[in-house]
Amino acid sequence: MNAKQSVPSGPHQRNWGAATPPANRIGPSLEPDRNGGDGPAGTFDVAIARRVLRQIGSPPLELILPGGQSVTANGTPPQCRIVIRDRGIYWRLLLDPLYHFAEGYASGRIDVEGDLLTPLRVVNEYMSIPSADRPRWFRGRPRSRRNANTLSGSRENIHRHYDLGNAFYRLWLDERMLYTCAYYREPSMTLEQAQVAKMDHVCRKLQLQPGEQVIEAGCGWGGLALHMARQYGVHVRAYNISAEQVRYARELARQEGLDDRVEFVEDDWRNITGTCDAFVSVGMLEHVGIENYPALGETIHRVLAPNGRGLIHTIGRNYPLQLDRWIERKIFPGAAPPTLSEMMGIFEGQDFSVLDVENLRLHYAVTLMDWFNRYEQNVDAVREMFDENFVRTWRLYLASSIAAFEYGWLQLFQVVFAPGASNNNPWTRDYQYRDDDVPRGAVWERLRHERTR
Amino acid sequence: MNAKQSVPSGPHQRNWGAATPPANRIGPSLEPDRNGGDGPAGTFDVAIARRVLRQIGSPPLELILPGGQSVTANGTPPQCRIVIRDRGIYWRLLLDPLYHFAEGYASGRIDVEGDLLTPLRVVNEYMSIPSADRPRWFRGRPRSRRNANTLSGSRENIHRHYDLGNAFYRLWLDERMLYTCAYYREPSMTLEQAQVAKMDHVCRKLQLQPGEQVIEAGCGWGGLALHMARQYGVHVRAYNISAEQVRYARELARQEGLDDRVEFVEDDWRNITGTCDAFVSVGMLEHVGIENYPALGETIHRVLAPNGRGLIHTIGRNYPLQLDRWIERKIFPGAAPPTLSEMMGIFEGQDFSVLDVENLRLHYAVTLMDWFNRYEQNVDAVREMFDENFVRTWRLYLASSIAAFEYGWLQLFQVVFAPGASNNNPWTRDYQYRDDDVPRGAVWERLRHERTR
Repeated sequence: MNAKQSVPSGPHQRNWGAATPPANRIGPSLEPDRNGGDGPAGTFDVAIARRVLRQIGSPPLELILPGGQSVTANGTPPQCRIVIRDRGIYWRLLLDPLYHFAEGYASGRIDVEGDLLTPLRVVNEYMSIPSADRPRWFRGRPRSRRNANTLSGSRENIHRHYDLGNAFYRLWLDERMLYTCAYYREPSMTLEQAQVAKMDHVCRKLQLQPGEQVIEAGCGWGGLALHMARQYGVHVRAYNISAEQVRYARELARQEGLDDRVEFVEDDWRNITGTCDAFVSVGMLEHVGIENYPALGETIHRVLAPNGRGLIHTIGRNYPLQLDRWIERKIFPGAAPPTLSEMMGIFEGQDFSVLDVENLRLHYAVTLMDWFNRYEQNVDAVREMFDENFVRTWRLYLASSIAAFEYGWLQLFQVVFAPGASNNNPWTRDYQYRDDDVPRGAVWERLRHERTR
Repeated sequence: MNAKQSVPSGPHQRNWGAATPPANRIGPSLEPDRNGGDGPAGTFDVAIARRVLRQIGSPPLELILPGGQSVTANGTPPQCRIVIRDRGIYWRLLLDPLYHFAEGYASGRIDVEGDLLTPLRVVNEYMSIPSADRPRWFRGRPRSRRNANTLSGSRENIHRHYDLGNAFYRLWLDERMLYTCAYYREPSMTLEQAQVAKMDHVCRKLQLQPGEQVIEAGCGWGGLALHMARQYGVHVRAYNISAEQVRYARELARQEGLDDRVEFVEDDWRNITGTCDAFVSVGMLEHVGIENYPALGETIHRVLAPNGRGLIHTIGRNYPLQLDRWIERKIFPGAAPPTLSEMMGIFEGQDFSVLDVENLRLHYAVTLMDWFNRYEQNVDAVREMFDENFVRTWRLYLASSIAAFEYGWLQLFQVVFAPGASNNNPWTRDYQYRDDDVPRGAVWERLRHERTR
């Protein structure tokens, strides 16, 4: 669901779809609307469907058309069946198959028989990079003016996603409400354990020492800030522009008696003040906007001590590509995952030295599997909070994100950096791995099967 | 010695300086030429010297002018004394202080009292990034047409450095003739041990399995290719355009009985053919030329298996900056250390996924200290092979490189990558550190003192 390039300009859609919930919900057996039938019109419909399949790389899918016809891509036995119930959405698939599949799925006009993840995987596997995008790394990328991350634009963009209500996120995140890639240091870890391991991995990379000052940019519900203060004895000033998250985090700090060491500031990263020994940002950069990276670099340069360390953890790309149009419109307005060369816009204007980059892509696939499974377990509670369009929108977002990380459309970069003149850095990286008794090797296949049976 | 931006066009200087060796060599006591004296001309000389010092950041140096006057930068007690013996070179310092210091030192018209490293360190510490270079990362960098790395240009550039004679390099490299940054996994390691540790670090990162096919681009004297075949049981095809190095490497392979598993090909990376499970290049990228990175990415894409791995090890920069003009002219024609964003030109046009970046900058400082110390121990043997200008040129190159890595003007990047669709990658990076009992922590200061008393 990630290969779309151009983000057409258009009005915001702030509510979660105007469509009323569909009459029938997903069930084991789906009876497509038989109107339309065969004959010349039916033959034309089939030709359209074949063309749609070719547009997305001829994946092994079976489409059941509104007229009841079954269409598959040539030469590929289908792995799953997609039922298109509505002629209106069917025609729109021609214009932008992935966007209107998502819209059709969200509104119930398109359904998937059985497992939702299978067709998403198949599409992510067969889809190729649009040729227009291919060798564009050196030319930069076109920028959307919609949902731009100005001071006020960022507030609006963040509000639309992160202020959906803490109760909603509590249904499927871990108990500490970390909404970023976990680190399954041992493959058997639960989501809770892997989120703690992620925080410890970040803290080790930052080599936090008791009494040090940390600035965190984009602190979510405060999980990492509180962990750093509690487990590593540091002082933290944590910034966030989501009002709901900041309120929640402050309350947690009070309950834990950490409010003398952790300060939550409801403000933009551009307004960060003070100085710090460590600068950390986990899962904010996606929302900063690539054009603002030099300004972020200036901000970090302004606050970070000469012997300080920094870490930025972000979703990324192997090559420049806009965020999937549907995800950008319905889930993450204004978001843009950068390539590493784009990320360097933060560092290379300031004589920061990049010390260490780690790509944890498949850890995010597993994290999303854990979120998705919890979401499905608690879907009735989601349904009590939101309409069915919302329920299906978020199911599709989580499932398609699993597939995107699994098939390499998205990456997860942790970048450790320091001022260029600092020699106060670890001699080797084994400090990140000491005192552990960790099972080794490529465990991806096992995890993949365990978590997505 | 690294902050120069523009490389003026001009004829090659193939021999090591036309100047005859100076009458008197470096000794513990230096008597400057007293001609010029005081008076109006002397006062003017002093003003010039002050200006030269300001141009390079007012470092704490004492300059002894050809007229015998002593000049220091205001407010900084000097840490060492530089004696300028010749009025011609003295005037040229105004035009380009670092270039003409180097030229003057090489020809003996400038001398340093005591330790050569001290003034180089002081200059590297005080020098600031030329403001014209500062925020240029987004505009790219100007490219020199001199010493361009075309097929024939590369051959010429490589010949000028690497074909100086194997006997010369044997005087100061380790026994395996590795002419790239070592990895002092344990700080107590000798150069020999650290070069083996570097090769093992590279091989671990590549996860070499017995029977696999490896392609190496730029193999030097064959040390890594032979190590991979011997210790990891792989087949290697190794490319190099230095005729002297290839001849040496082939002879080693024959002596070791590895010539059935290691093939040395005297050809350019652009002409690499075949397929491989692992692609490795250690210390070649500096000579490729940034404009050729997309072509290098295409070459790797062409030969690397879908589940393959790759590693590129190179000197780099924190921000785009031409190689020091003197080093580019006298030592490494056509060389250019890239920033990480520039390096991404290899990967981001091909859907390669960058898995891991490690910066081993200070390991290169230590490596150079070991080389420098051996060079000085064997300087009489060098003197039998080359003239005094050569002896002093290479002494200055090694010493100034120590300072450049020590003060962050140069970096050392190891980048591990894989095809974007491959999930055949390690789950965590602890595999790089297992089975080791390695002393931890920041050991830089200790090493720095141990190796450069």
